[in-house]
Amino acid sequence: MDPVGFVPTMGYLHEGHLSLVRKARRDCDSVVVSIFVNPTQFAHNEDINTYPQDIARDLEILETQDVDFVWIPKAGDMYPPGFQSWVSVDELTLPLEGIFRPEHFRGVTTVVAKLFNCVRPNYAYFGQKDYQQAVVIQRMVIDLNFPIEVVVCPIIREEDGLAMSSRNVYLKPEQRKAATVLNRSLVKASQVFEFGERDADTLRTVVKETILEEPLAQLQYISCANLETLEELDGMVERCVLLIAVLFGKTRLIDNVLIGD
Amino acid sequence: MDPVGFVPTMGYLHEGHLSLVRKARRDCDSVVVSIFVNPTQFAHNEDINTYPQDIARDLEILETQDVDFVWIPKAGDMYPPGFQSWVSVDELTLPLEGIFRPEHFRGVTTVVAKLFNCVRPNYAYFGQKDYQQAVVIQRMVIDLNFPIEVVVCPIIREEDGLAMSSRNVYLKPEQRKAATVLNRSLVKASQVFEFGERDADTLRTVVKETILEEPLAQLQYISCANLETLEELDGMVERCVLLIAVLFGKTRLIDNVLIGD
Repeated sequence: MDPVGFVPTMGYLHEGHLSLVRKARRDCDSVVVSIFVNPTQFAHNEDINTYPQDIARDLEILETQDVDFVWIPKAGDMYPPGFQSWVSVDELTLPLEGIFRPEHFRGVTTVVAKLFNCVRPNYAYFGQKDYQQAVVIQRMVIDLNFPIEVVVCPIIREEDGLAMSSRNVYLKPEQRKAATVLNRSLVKASQVFEFGERDADTLRTVVKETILEEPLAQLQYISCANLETLEELDGMVERCVLLIAVLFGKTRLIDNVLIGD
Repeated sequence: MDPVGFVPTMGYLHEGHLSLVRKARRDCDSVVVSIFVNPTQFAHNEDINTYPQDIARDLEILETQDVDFVWIPKAGDMYPPGFQSWVSVDELTLPLEGIFRPEHFRGVTTVVAKLFNCVRPNYAYFGQKDYQQAVVIQRMVIDLNFPIEVVVCPIIREEDGLAMSSRNVYLKPEQRKAATVLNRSLVKASQVFEFGERDADTLRTVVKETILEEPLAQLQYISCANLETLEELDGMVERCVLLIAVLFGKTRLIDNVLIGD
């Protein structure tokens, strides 16, 4: 059977999404893109009602990408009356995003399992920008025996280094400038590592001090974690992922970098 | 594609299982039977270590049934180190078995989802004897978009009416005789319904009084429930399912009957 590639998105597409579509196009005979702002992964106090949407623009963009199917499910079809089944992943969803968004990953894994069962892809493409999400979905695929290969693609950045995200449109001009601090802080820690620093706590401190220099940035977490288990590391590290979440006003941005990998 | 039929079992096969296999054989081009005593659906205080097993006998029986594949997964393959993903169904798993076996259904839905993803059947066959389980799995299949039709097959009974169950071998001779009270109580309530009785409470009382006449029987629950939601019914009923769980010593038996259906 010819391979089917699947790129699940919440729409408002940017170059990050398109890098996934292009990778799917290279790997697969058929490419399916879904656009669905999944209500179950937003908490009541979160931004589902303001989440940026522009289906017409998304379809125009996808027209240029040689996509075979674009699927735009309706919330009422995905969550019909009586809906009550959930897919959840335990330990991996507890730290980092899980602390600030406790119900988030249950919504993500449930909708991704549903989308997988509808599309039945051979390959599914996710961005490294949502690193914890990618690790959680990889775990779900293994644990629940989905016959799917999860492909995690590199973060795509704006010219000034800000990781592309649909939520970047929320940023006011001065916040947008300040938001480059996420990438700058991670690059600085990477350089410190390249120069020989191996202490996890020092790497975290380098990131932290860079972010604290930016008055508009409100740090939520900084983690130096094991790549597979997301467990916080101490002492000397040869490989790790540095993950950060930062608020600019109400806009929450995340970013990460692999170190020594 | 030619339909694949799947009969998931915990082995120690009896005529109940074989009725599922025969139905699958009639419906499908390929028939897959799995045998797996799933550890995650047993609580610590339950009978996984004594659950009856005889793989050689099961295989001999299946040889006579024109089965295409028999799959006997190993627990270590189904639950590798780091396993942490679960499928759960909410409301439907709370009453009845859910009260006496609080973790049970999470184990069932998780392993069935895993088996479904491995076998990828078009039809999956379950016995009505585990009525709540069948309803829960049907809900999971709808909610998570498994492209599978769940087929629920009638209860197969011994000549004296006892519903077939692998756990019947636990019964001592006097308990085995007494165990016919489950079916007798349900038949009696059915007859009372046939004669015009429609009050849910009266139907429950008929079952209850019959079981209380049997000194070896310890009633766990009796329910007159909505067929789809399993909500307890009150007042006049035109359709319902009567469900019971009864202990004989340490052996726990369940049975049910559809009324007015």
